[in-house]
This record gives sequence, C-alpha cells and structure tokens, in this order.
Amino acid sequence: MQFHLNGFKPGSPEVADAARVVAHTDTLPDKVDVLIVGCGPAGLTLAAQLSVFPHIRTCIVDQKEGPLQMGQADGIACRTMEMFEAFNFSERVLKEACWINEVTFWKPDAAKPGSIVRHGRVQDTEDGLSEFPHVVLNQARVHDFYLDFMRKAPTRLEPHYARSFVDLEVDPSASEHPVTVRLERTDAAHAGQIETLKARYVVGCDGARSGVRKAIGRQLVGDSANHAWGVMDMLCVTDFPDIRHKVAVQSANGNLLVIPREGGYLVRFYVEMDKLGQAERVASRGITLDTLIAAAQRILHPYTLDVKEVPWWSVYEIGQRICDQYDDAPEAEADTRQPRVFIAGDACHTHSPKAGQGMNFSMQDTFNLGWKLAAVLSNQCAPELLRTYSQERQVVAQELIDFDREWAAMFSDRPQQDGNGQSEGVDPEAFQKYFEQHGRFTAGMGTHYRPSIICGEDTHQHLATGFVVGTRFHSAPVLRAFDARPMELGHVAKADGRWRLYAFAGARDLPGHADSGIDALCRFLAESSDSPLLKHTPAGQDLDAVFDLRAIFQGSNRALHLEAMPSLLCPSKGRYGLKDYEKVFCSGTRADQNIFDLRGIDKVQGALVVVRPDQYIAQVLPLDAHAELASFFAGFMRVKAT
Amino acid sequence: MQFHLNGFKPGSPEVADAARVVAHTDTLPDKVDVLIVGCGPAGLTLAAQLSVFPHIRTCIVDQKEGPLQMGQADGIACRTMEMFEAFNFSERVLKEACWINEVTFWKPDAAKPGSIVRHGRVQDTEDGLSEFPHVVLNQARVHDFYLDFMRKAPTRLEPHYARSFVDLEVDPSASEHPVTVRLERTDAAHAGQIETLKARYVVGCDGARSGVRKAIGRQLVGDSANHAWGVMDMLCVTDFPDIRHKVAVQSANGNLLVIPREGGYLVRFYVEMDKLGQAERVASRGITLDTLIAAAQRILHPYTLDVKEVPWWSVYEIGQRICDQYDDAPEAEADTRQPRVFIAGDACHTHSPKAGQGMNFSMQDTFNLGWKLAAVLSNQCAPELLRTYSQERQVVAQELIDFDREWAAMFSDRPQQDGNGQSEGVDPEAFQKYFEQHGRFTAGMGTHYRPSIICGEDTHQHLATGFVVGTRFHSAPVLRAFDARPMELGHVAKADGRWRLYAFAGARDLPGHADSGIDALCRFLAESSDSPLLKHTPAGQDLDAVFDLRAIFQGSNRALHLEAMPSLLCPSKGRYGLKDYEKVFCSGTRADQNIFDLRGIDKVQGALVVVRPDQYIAQVLPLDAHAELASFFAGFMRVKAT
Repeated sequence: MQFHLNGFKPGSPEVADAARVVAHTDTLPDKVDVLIVGCGPAGLTLAAQLSVFPHIRTCIVDQKEGPLQMGQADGIACRTMEMFEAFNFSERVLKEACWINEVTFWKPDAAKPGSIVRHGRVQDTEDGLSEFPHVVLNQARVHDFYLDFMRKAPTRLEPHYARSFVDLEVDPSASEHPVTVRLERTDAAHAGQIETLKARYVVGCDGARSGVRKAIGRQLVGDSANHAWGVMDMLCVTDFPDIRHKVAVQSANGNLLVIPREGGYLVRFYVEMDKLGQAERVASRGITLDTLIAAAQRILHPYTLDVKEVPWWSVYEIGQRICDQYDDAPEAEADTRQPRVFIAGDACHTHSPKAGQGMNFSMQDTFNLGWKLAAVLSNQCAPELLRTYSQERQVVAQELIDFDREWAAMFSDRPQQDGNGQSEGVDPEAFQKYFEQHGRFTAGMGTHYRPSIICGEDTHQHLATGFVVGTRFHSAPVLRAFDARPMELGHVAKADGRWRLYAFAGARDLPGHADSGIDALCRFLAESSDSPLLKHTPAGQDLDAVFDLRAIFQGSNRALHLEAMPSLLCPSKGRYGLKDYEKVFCSGTRADQNIFDLRGIDKVQGALVVVRPDQYIAQVLPLDAHAELASFFAGFMRVKAT
Repeated sequence: MQFHLNGFKPGSPEVADAARVVAHTDTLPDKVDVLIVGCGPAGLTLAAQLSVFPHIRTCIVDQKEGPLQMGQADGIACRTMEMFEAFNFSERVLKEACWINEVTFWKPDAAKPGSIVRHGRVQDTEDGLSEFPHVVLNQARVHDFYLDFMRKAPTRLEPHYARSFVDLEVDPSASEHPVTVRLERTDAAHAGQIETLKARYVVGCDGARSGVRKAIGRQLVGDSANHAWGVMDMLCVTDFPDIRHKVAVQSANGNLLVIPREGGYLVRFYVEMDKLGQAERVASRGITLDTLIAAAQRILHPYTLDVKEVPWWSVYEIGQRICDQYDDAPEAEADTRQPRVFIAGDACHTHSPKAGQGMNFSMQDTFNLGWKLAAVLSNQCAPELLRTYSQERQVVAQELIDFDREWAAMFSDRPQQDGNGQSEGVDPEAFQKYFEQHGRFTAGMGTHYRPSIICGEDTHQHLATGFVVGTRFHSAPVLRAFDARPMELGHVAKADGRWRLYAFAGARDLPGHADSGIDALCRFLAESSDSPLLKHTPAGQDLDAVFDLRAIFQGSNRALHLEAMPSLLCPSKGRYGLKDYEKVFCSGTRADQNIFDLRGIDKVQGALVVVRPDQYIAQVLPLDAHAELASFFAGFMRVKAT
C-alpha cells in the first residue's frame, strides 16, 4: 500500500480523501454518469470500480430493501481472488473463507447396493495456477467487502435500495445523458412512487429476469428445459468422513454436491432434483425442505445426516442460456452509434451451479466493463472502446456455457453400475479425469480474449511464454529492489484504471549501461514526442497516472544502484515531488522462485508485458518495440488536450 | 476462524455475541474486576485480552482526551506479530506496515572526511526465525486495531478518556474489591472532578512517570544520566540511496537511525543528541525542529535532505531503568498476601529506542499478565499464580536492559577513524556483527522463562529440541487433516486464555492401533479420574474450553481416517453437538516443510508440547507421561466444583 504522498493523514489509509462529497440522500440524483441496476456481485464490482474515480458520478440501485444477509452463491475462484486483491480485500476473504483444497468423488458401492463409496480424491487446484487458493464464502460477505470498499472510496458511494426497474429509453440524438430510466420505489413508505433519472450509461446487473435486458430487446437463448436444484446451508451432525471436503457424490439415489463452508461447521448441499418440462417452473413441484433433506439422506446412505439448523435453503430451476450481444448498439450501426446500455452477469448468461462459475464470471464481466466506462468518461478513450465489452465477454461466456453444459450433463447422468465403460451413463473415472482437466476453467483461468484494438497478436509471445496475450497476468514472486521486500508482482495492479507496463530486463540491462533496453525504453517514454506516456497522460497528473511502468531485473537487489536508475523508475510525484521507490523489482536469488524461469521470459532479450487495467495481458513486445507500443495505444486512446 | 457453532449469524464473524451488555457511559462504573490505567500498548494489550471474557468487568482509563493519532513508537518485532495473530489482526498489520527486510550500515568515508559510506548490509531477520516479518507501523494504528478488537469482543469494551490517576489504596483485609482508586477528570467540562472506583485488581500501564508505580512505592533504578534523542517523522526528498532500508549511520558528525515507514514515502529519523547531566531534562536545551533537521543533514553528508513535511517530532531523554518488582505484594508476605496492583511497560522498565524494544516488550508484559488475571478471576487458578507475573517479566526485562545498554553504548560511541581496531570507539564491523548476533533479541525471541509452577524443567527437551521449554512456541507449517488446508500450527493459538496441548505422534501412532500413544493420551484425558481435562474443565462448558488438544501425525492426510480418530480429536461442541474437525493435523508430504524435522521432534516416540495461553512452552513431555501432565496442572489449577 502506498499512502501519505500528499501529506500525512492519521487513521486508516484505506479511507481515501473524499472528493466532491455528494452526501448520500434518500432520493436519487437527477443525472448521473452511470446508473447500475442491481446490487449483486456484477453490480457491486462495477460500482466499486467506478467509485475510485472522483469525477465519475455513479448511482447503484437494487429492488431489495437492504444488503443481502445470506444465501445465494458461495464459490470464489482463484481468478476472483486475484481481482479481490486489486480491490484490496483479498486478505479479508482469505481469513474468513473456507479453503477448498481437495475434492473427493463418491460412487455407488458395487459390493453394497444402495451405499456409496469413495473412488477418488484430487487436489482442487493445480500447483502454481495462482498465488491464491479456491475458497468458499457466503455471497453476502463478498457484498459487504465491496460495500465497505465503496464507502471508503473518494466518492463514498452507497446503494439506493428498494428501487425496482420499470423501463428505460435511449435518445441516440442526445449528446449528454441520453438514457432516461424510470424506477419504482418498493419500500412501504414510498411504494409505487416513480423516479426518473437521466444517465450517460446504464448497466443492467439485474439477474436472469433482467428488466434492462428486456428493455433493450436482448434475449437469453439456449436450453429449452430447466434443471431443478435444491440447495441448503446446514449445521448438521454426520459420520460422512469427507464433510469438510468438496465432494461430488453420484449415487443410485441421485446426485449431490457437498461444499464445506466458512467457520468450520456450516456446509452446503446441492441436491439434484428433476429435469423440468419446457417452461415449467420448479415452484409447481411444491418441493419442501423436508424433501431435500430426505433426498440428501438417501444419497449419503449408509452415512447418517442429522440436520440441526438450516439457515437458508432454496429450490430453483436453471438452464444454460446466453444473449448474443451484451449492449444496445446494433452491430450494423457500429460507425454511427455506440453502446449506451449494457447487461452483465446473470442478465446475459446463466449456468448450472456445478461449475461454480455464475458469481465469478459475473464479476469478471463488470471488471472488464468498469475501466472502459471510466476511460471513456474521463475522455481518455473514444466511446468505440465500449464495444469491446460485449465482443470480449460474450465469446468467453459462450465457451463457459459449452463447458458448463458438458459438465452439468456429465454430473446429472446416472453413473454406470458396472464400471466397465460399456453401459450407458458416465464412467466415474472419466468424470474425475474431466474434473482435473478442467481445473483451469473452474479456477477462472479459461478466459482468453481474441485480438482486438485492446488486445494484441501473439507475434512476440516467445519472449514471455508464461504471459499469454489475452489471458490474465499470472503473478509470480519478486523482490522489490529498494526495500528488499519479497512480494507478488501481480499485486501492484490495483483496480485504479491504470495500465501496467512490466519491463523485464534482458541480459545486458543494467541501469546506466549504454545499451540497456530498459534505459532506452525509459528515454523513449520520458522524452520522445511519440511517447504514449506523454501523449496520453493529462497535464497536471503524476507521470504514472495512466501508464504504471515497472522494471524487473535479473538477480539480486544488491547489484542494483538507485543512483543509476532512469528517473522514470524513481519518479517524483504528488504535491511535494516525493520519490516513488516501488517501481523496480528483481528476480532475487532463490532459484525456485525466479520469475524469469517461472514465466518463460527470454533472459537475453527481456520483454515488455503490457497489462490492461483489468489485469489481462494486452501485448508482449520486445523492449525496443517503441513504435509498436506507441501505435497500440494510439489505436484507442485520445491524445491529451494541449 | 471458527464460527456459526451455535447457529448461523449473518454479518462479520469477528463481531462476537455481546455478553452482559453494559452500555459504555461517560461515567465510570463503581466497581470493576480490573482497572487498567493507561491506553498505551501495554494497557490496550491487557484490555483486549480481558475483553474476551464475558464474565470479567474491565475498565481502562487514560489521561488523554481520545485515541492516539500519531507519533511515538513504530517498530513491531516478529514476536509481537505472532501475538497480533492471536488477537486476529496480524493480516491488517502485514498489509499496512512497512516491512524491514535489510539493514545497512554506514560509516565515515576514510577517503573523504566529512562524508559517509556504506560498509555493510545484512538481512534483518534470520530465515526461519518466525513466520512473520519485522515491520514498522505508527503506534496509533496498533492502538486502532486493539480498540477495534475490544469493540467487537463479547464485552464491547471501550476506554474512558480524560482521566488522570490520583492515588490508590489497598485494603488487604477486604475480601472483594480491595483496591480503591481515585481519578481526576481532565476534560474542560469536568475538569477537577474526582471519581472513586473499587477494583479487585489495578494495573498501572501509565508510562515512565507512572503514578501507580509511585503509589505502590516501587522505583525505577538504573542509569543516573539520560541520553537526549531527537525523533522526527518526515516526508522528504533525498538522494541517500538507502532511504527505504533500516539504516544505522555512524558519522563524524553524530549518529542517526533511519526507519522507513508505512505507505512508501514516510520515514523516521532518530538523531542522537547530547548526554544529559544527572537529573537534567532535555527541555532545558531548547532544541528545535530546525536543530534536528540540520543535525540530520550534517550526518548524511554528502547526501542531500530536503524536508517537505514533519507530521510529528519530539525531543526526549531516556535512560535504562527498571523496577525490582512489578507488583505491590512484599516477597516476605508471599504466604499471606497476594498481589493486587501491578505495573507494566514503561512504568517498570525504560529503554533506548535503538533496540526497538520498548513497545514490544511492554505488550508482552501484559500478554503475560492477562491470562493469569483471567484465570484467577474465573476461579480456574489460585491467586498465587499472579506472583509469577513479576517473577517472569522482571528477569527477562533485566536481560533486555543489559542487552539494550550494551547496544546503546555501542551505537552512541564515536566510530573509529582508522578502522584498525586499535583506537578508541566502536569498530563498525564489530557493530554490524553485534547486530547480527542479537537479531533474535531484537525480534523478541530473547525471552526465556525460568522453571516455576507454570513452566517446567527441560527433562524431556530431547523429544522436541526446537520447542524449548520457557520460550515461545515456534510455529511451523502443517496440513489440517480433514480439509487438507495448509496452515501454520501456531495460528490455532488465539488469545482466549486456553492451554494448548500439541500431541505429536510417534512412529506407531496411527489412530485405532492398539499401542497408539495418541489414543492412550486421549483415553486418559477423556476417561481417567486423574485427567486434568476432567478435573479442571467447568461443567457445562465444551470439552476443549480449558485444554485445547491438537494432534499432529506424520505423513499425508490421506492416510488418516476420521472414523478411527478418538472422539476427543473430533469433539462434539456447542448447543447442537456439532463436530469440531480442526483438531487434527499432519506434517504433509513436502520434505522441506516437515514440522517434525523443523522442530526436532522425536519421530519414534513423538512428544507432547504443553503451551500456555500466552504462547510460551510450559512442558515437553513423553506422550505417555500422563501422571506428570496431571501433576503439572494440579500445581496451580483448582479442581472444578462438583
């Protein structure tokens, strides 16, 4: 954490100076930059992201009367933890959550009909996939952490509850605030009152039955029939030995997923119910909690299950569905009309709970959208940038749906009874193997964006084979040079809308050497009229306000001399011109922790890895590809006003 | 973290259920169990410790008008971080603090008179000394974390500010609340009002000029003369290359200590000023901030120092002094009179800032006292236990003073100019060597309690050579058996007043085997009429309420079967009788992380390591030393009422 740059302030450094304080009132503002409909994971990720920009006016509404208290999703993928680190609360989740370390698999016991037996056990997440574990925590606590983050942000953003979305209208001819939204208050004191609000942009994070989606005429398409699921959070006494593991049980009496939960005692069961008829709703089945418990007891036989308390349970139906586009701008009008309304999360894609991806994927949607909205609203980029949201997220969601469908089908199939691979149904060993193979997908690492104006080709991929263009920046350990602190390089990337330029030094790159590629890159960035840093960083802002350059040298920090560093790597910042000493790193001396080896970086030539504000790798370039670097940013960034 | 045992509760699990809620009011209560005078690190550690016991009524007062905002101490030793983990806020300190990783040493440049040159660089903390780093953070933030902990504790404890200690009186004949204390209110609205309060125990954490110390007739003795020091927190611009390291500068123009601070920009300088005459106060010298800055600039020459902001500075005098006893009970009356008033922290020992031990040692004082007060107030132990506070802490403080005096003298001596070891003053190389040798002391690991009723002999030390009786339990990595979670074993020890029994399995100790030492130990504890667990655990409380038994097996968790575990290792707890699955660990399969190897545990016989509530090792015993175990606890614990 860096703080005190512009003067010492007592108290928690997580509480930012308040900017343009607009006291949170009960009534909605008339005009906002962004209206977010829905306080779920997608809505809150977006609100948290936008809350850090002092000049952006955001409003987030929800139809519920207050924050979520319990229930709903609980799985947090490694990739999501990496994002939480950017929002500064990963350590709180790590502390409070249940860590998923192993998954076990149970199947019908061939020797004892009606009983189950363990047939497999795998490590949940492959070694080295992420510096974070896969964890499980009540979705309500994730909301709490976001709400806390927003409250401490410069804009002190708070949601407006008890507002139900009615409709919206976009006036493409209006230059400012073209979207008019109507909301209806739902609390007893104001029930039925209609509020009207004008916004530059509206984002519908309002779930599978999204009103915003309907308002822009998009449709979820996919499965015609739904699967019914029962889910219950329990405090129970059982002799089932794997109750603190994630467990997939396939039994002759049905299928069950065990998810151990935070605090050491709570556990969640997902119980698979019937497949529903087309358009049939699960409510019509009249399934009760007792039905669910009885089903779970049958499946776990011969183990006992004595349920003591069920703080939350639900029965719901779900199918695999997706929208073909996530915004309101027709592709045919791409030259004349840019998107004004977006949908995210369950509003545009729905999943089986098996893959544990609904909440995680939804948050990644708006982490993708947030920095783009901020860049356009800050006049850093043209509105065309916003088209890439749907282009990028729709494709990867379709891939997830495909994965998810295959996974759900495999899970729902009745297991083979003979185990010889000849009969119908899923071979339990095949099921386990599939699980292992798709670990990267369930960890949230399956996302791979295609080349676009903000994502380069893999021309220079060989310079850093472990930093794959289009995938998330995979952190690795480094030593910070000027205070010798061991840390994760990826953790410098905060959710602040900035681009990271990681310059990995080549063999000859010692600062001050005439032929140092790092020195030459710094000279280009600091002095050239083509420098993206000079072209796109607004006057009056710190040198690293748009591009956060970091250098990583090979070897020990003791070989690095501060005196010889280019000034861009020890820049003067803030009102006092204090030096920032946290821009330079080295690989250190531990052979098993060398980032150059771990990420396949060319040790002779080095590499420049360009990372987007959402932590995805946009480019891998040679250190001396100055023109290529400039041209990449010129493709979507505006030249600052002079 | 374990929670939800007695039912699901939404919201933060760090907020405990409120017990016997006594709303915090402006006026003091008439009677309390413990009155703590002083809201510094010693007072707050004690208040935090006592706040977790629902039945103990604590009051903490301070003469200041509110919480500390800035200044004072900042160094946090590894040992202190281990204690913060027990108070559940280590992760907040780790995140916010500056980590001290390397220390550099500078001396006069023989080639350039009047200039300094770096002559050494060492790792700050030896590898493996603790799982925590040495960090630096504003003392005010440490206070904040304690206050936050107290606010969330069952007793919702808050300090009463603007109270100045006047005097106290102990009536040895009174059976209840024998201490009468008078306090004077100091805020403008109530200035001069005297409040009287009765307490069972009073603890003076009121600093070097302690009124409580004077009231019980104890005296600080030691150095007759003080050293004057200047200290300033700065935001500055400098070309001194080690500004983000801890640095000891010995120059021809004086000595300086550089302490980099949290946030990446702030730095603290300790500037050594003159030695004062006997009884002389530094205030008489009229030293100004400008004097301090000018001195620092001279010492750092040829490097520049441009000071932009000084949020806090101070000039103070300090000598090495200590009390011979830390309580009010005369040794001669040990049979008839037990202590009622204690002093802790600066009230009974003062140090040079060089060793960075003042705040750290003070907190360990009251971490030692806290559980003892709680055990006596809970009727778990007889009041004789309280004598061990002074007996243990006075001895280790004297050792620290001795270390500190040597260190301060070495630091204050003028460096040798010729470097041949023949002239007067301290050889810089000797200084650096001394620093390295004493790293364990500065990390807070120098404390080694002598045998007493609560600390055993080293008779069986060979069974676990890395768990030295009388020193703090040195954590090591383990795998939790039933959820395969990697963790630090020491982190199960929370500041909850409980004793930990770590049973390390021998070679034949697989659960369910007839000759398993672990099984036999569990049978003894669960069934024998001599079992300390049965003798000292109050009726109606969970089986682990006083003794928290944990077993650590050799090898992989996959070889451990829950079904075969003794029920004491998977105990039923709380109102539902839910099973606690977090009692069993294993060493896992990583050869470099095997706790048996790391801590020298006898792999054939195993070992039982008994750890006190303050994390110090009380006993190392063979697994089958059942009688010895029972007799140890019988020596100071009361048999529960039957």
